[in-house]
Amino acid sequence: MADADVAALVARARDGEARAVGRLISLVENASPLLRAVTVALMPYVGRARVIGLTGSPGVGKSTTTAALVTAFRARDLRVGVLAVDPSSPFSGGALLGDRVRMQDHATDSGVYIRSMASRGHLGGLAWSTPQALRVLDAAGCDVVLVETVGVGQAEVEVASLADTTLVLVAPGMGDAIQAAKAGILEIADVFVVNKADRDGADQAARDLRHMLSLGERRTADEWQPPVVKTVAARGEGIDDVVAALDKHHDWLVASGRLDAKRRVRAADEIEAIAVTALRERIGDLRGGSLLDELAGRVVGGDLDPYSAADTLLEGLTT
Amino acid sequence: MADADVAALVARARDGEARAVGRLISLVENASPLLRAVTVALMPYVGRARVIGLTGSPGVGKSTTTAALVTAFRARDLRVGVLAVDPSSPFSGGALLGDRVRMQDHATDSGVYIRSMASRGHLGGLAWSTPQALRVLDAAGCDVVLVETVGVGQAEVEVASLADTTLVLVAPGMGDAIQAAKAGILEIADVFVVNKADRDGADQAARDLRHMLSLGERRTADEWQPPVVKTVAARGEGIDDVVAALDKHHDWLVASGRLDAKRRVRAADEIEAIAVTALRERIGDLRGGSLLDELAGRVVGGDLDPYSAADTLLEGLTT
Repeated sequence: MADADVAALVARARDGEARAVGRLISLVENASPLLRAVTVALMPYVGRARVIGLTGSPGVGKSTTTAALVTAFRARDLRVGVLAVDPSSPFSGGALLGDRVRMQDHATDSGVYIRSMASRGHLGGLAWSTPQALRVLDAAGCDVVLVETVGVGQAEVEVASLADTTLVLVAPGMGDAIQAAKAGILEIADVFVVNKADRDGADQAARDLRHMLSLGERRTADEWQPPVVKTVAARGEGIDDVVAALDKHHDWLVASGRLDAKRRVRAADEIEAIAVTALRERIGDLRGGSLLDELAGRVVGGDLDPYSAADTLLEGLTT
Repeated sequence: MADADVAALVARARDGEARAVGRLISLVENASPLLRAVTVALMPYVGRARVIGLTGSPGVGKSTTTAALVTAFRARDLRVGVLAVDPSSPFSGGALLGDRVRMQDHATDSGVYIRSMASRGHLGGLAWSTPQALRVLDAAGCDVVLVETVGVGQAEVEVASLADTTLVLVAPGMGDAIQAAKAGILEIADVFVVNKADRDGADQAARDLRHMLSLGERRTADEWQPPVVKTVAARGEGIDDVVAALDKHHDWLVASGRLDAKRRVRAADEIEAIAVTALRERIGDLRGGSLLDELAGRVVGGDLDPYSAADTLLEGLTT
């Protein structure tokens, strides 16, 4: 595929052609040789989408909430992307479809793009492929991208680092408030949702969360105070309150300058990761060559220490 | 501590002073600013020690076998180092002493140096600190260094990459042969030991292992065929056979040129790791500076792609 084809694919994605979007995500997800060309072609169009992360334990109603949020954003005529990241699955593209039943309402809506992704990719998973997919959806004209991931360990922290706003779901009676405090979730949540609020214990769960938040590090007046919202997502109850909380957080991010700061940190992280990968590749190229082999031989022979060898290697790299 | 003090410490370690050896290991293990100076000071004396890795599930008798091997090597008047690596422990130095009871026979023997190490160090654990400690023991005049680690996941593969010869222990009736095949242990073992061979099922375990080995990738005649040795380490039975198998493997490594090849690969790995760390540090230094921040701002603004930003960053690094 030539650069001209990449440009054509980007143009078709921007016209709302779902297949072109899917093809671009596949290209970046698999780190194809075209990754750089695709990224360059997308750049003029990125930076518009609001990225909202959703996380929580299995069974709290993430998919249902995601679907309800899609409906709410579509009612405003916003274009919506959904990335469902399964950190435990090695499969991508068609993964998680069993959980996507609620999303079927949106499957024929050309204003919604839904993609399941495996995070256990060969290149480091979520950390690698999700930001690339986000960039595609952003450039394709999504106003909002919802990144949904099962809250298992590191994945939710990674989602938080990618999202502008992180929504953490809990359900009553699951001890989630306590779990959340343990797992460091309190620090990453911008909005808490107690879903299935028609069940016993919903008020208690909300109180627990507020209590936990009050016990956490004191937030100054100009910092964001995460609200706790109760929903019954399956019936759409409370979803307007969630959207209002998300909007409020977004406005705060913009007004406080935090949105720009977050995006700069993410960009710096990405530049750094690309630079380190490039340097590793250059070193890797040297492995086949004679310099590293010769240096290794001298270290084994005891007449060169590995630090001096590394110095020599770096001189070889950078000239 | 000045370079002269490092040289004095190395001299004392070479004289067999256990405290000096311990101090040097602590210095390299904690990646002190002296790490490079210590490494340089050790270089003239390294490359003599035979490194033997021992691994296996909890309860197979690793400590007992290690102690029996120490006795056998001491009977030949060889100096022996023991590194007991606990991949699950964040503690070092005094860790694992509960398991070291069998080693107490050797505790007052100046020809034996025993050290427990935690692998979960702040710098990546086994991969980092064990080779450094090996270098100290090698330079301090150990003829043999035994690296003992609990066979949990990645740790045993790492041990194999550090050792000249890897000994894998199994016990009868633990289904270890099957587990070994699953975990890829068959590929890393140079010598198999069925310990506790006085128990029921020892012959079966040995047969299972031989069968598994025969099913594995076919080995050509000039390749090493891992022997399966039965022992009752607690009574010293079979230990001579183990030592003979270890010696045979060592002779094969030398004669086939594999020993030199292994050591070259290890040296190349280490040089590469040092070089990548140095480059990462240079990039890290840039994070505080204006270049990366400016590049990140331009990427956020959409007028620079992250790949071109990384190129610019690397130019800044290498000039």
